Amino acid sequence: MARSTHSQKTTAKRTQARGEAFAQAVLNITLLQLAELGFERLSIPAVAQLAQVNKTSIYRRWPTKADLVRDALSLALGPSADAAPDTGSFRGDLLALARTAAALMQSPVGKALMRITLSESAHPELQALALAAQAKASAHAPVVVLMRAVQRGEIRAGVDPALILFTLAGTILHKVFVEHAPVSETFLEQAVDVVLNGASSNL
Amino acid sequence: MARSTHSQKTTAKRTQARGEAFAQAVLNITLLQLAELGFERLSIPAVAQLAQVNKTSIYRRWPTKADLVRDALSLALGPSADAAPDTGSFRGDLLALARTAAALMQSPVGKALMRITLSESAHPELQALALAAQAKASAHAPVVVLMRAVQRGEIRAGVDPALILFTLAGTILHKVFVEHAPVSETFLEQAVDVVLNGASSNL
Repeated sequence: MARSTHSQKTTAKRTQARGEAFAQAVLNITLLQLAELGFERLSIPAVAQLAQVNKTSIYRRWPTKADLVRDALSLALGPSADAAPDTGSFRGDLLALARTAAALMQSPVGKALMRITLSESAHPELQALALAAQAKASAHAPVVVLMRAVQRGEIRAGVDPALILFTLAGTILHKVFVEHAPVSETFLEQAVDVVLNGASSNL
Repeated sequence: MARSTHSQKTTAKRTQARGEAFAQAVLNITLLQLAELGFERLSIPAVAQLAQVNKTSIYRRWPTKADLVRDALSLALGPSADAAPDTGSFRGDLLALARTAAALMQSPVGKALMRITLSESAHPELQALALAAQAKASAHAPVVVLMRAVQRGEIRAGVDPALILFTLAGTILHKVFVEHAPVSETFLEQAVDVVLNGASSNL
């Protein structure tokens, strides 16, 4: 057991690397297809064809479409979700969060999540999955940013801190999914400023 | 031609009324099915069964699914979209618009529109239809409200008036379609106040 030769180790490593490359390719194609077609029209044979792999290899690793989609979403939302920006000001931190949210919403995974989120009646288990993925994506960093702002006294009394984030996220959501317009840096700054400073001249 | 008898007129009216009732029933069921299943899984035979009408009667009036869906969306977005609230204050008008938007987003037609909006790659012609329907729903009243606020000097210099509406609409969008939470009057007031007065304590 402990006495594997050098070449056995190398072979094992190569197999593992091939396995990883295979999984990455399949999961990336899955994500793109999910964003393009939605869960219902996503087909494992089509994913296999686009990823240029054998469909039985996919079924061996992911017995159902839901298994495949779960892993694709986990992979896409995996890293980088946890870094809380720390620019020194609430405005700077909100802008950083807004950039991250805009990038996510404009990516295939963001679109895939929105499609799944909207089809909950048809797929309750996938809906739960998408909500969990969204919660994961929006959990740590925004909470850290809000807590810092509360501690610095940067949030107006009577304002629900969560509402600040949802207002900002919603504004970007509207731009991407309702207006279907590109998100510019100027737009993000204007949105942050409206949320922070308000739109009323009566102050 | 001008000499139709009383009974002919009555029959014609009855036929027309039956035709209207038939169309209303079919279009209402279409809307519910669209919200529940999306365009792809919507089926005319299923609509016929739920509306308890003959499917050939549906095909006679709406040769394709897209024809049926177009009329269902037009009917749902038809009236009431044009009444601009006039409460005397920008805040009151925004709150009234927010209530209308929240009601629309929580209705079957709102959900149907969002589903179609998200699936544009699969159905460009339906996507255009949904965007036109949304534009119609959000065209007149908000513009009147914004113009009045601009004339009264109620909007802070440098703020894009349209952004005020999109921020508010987006916040409700997030509540309904991402958080899947009910929209309360308190939430709408808080959202309007954040958009108008801002969240920052630095003022």
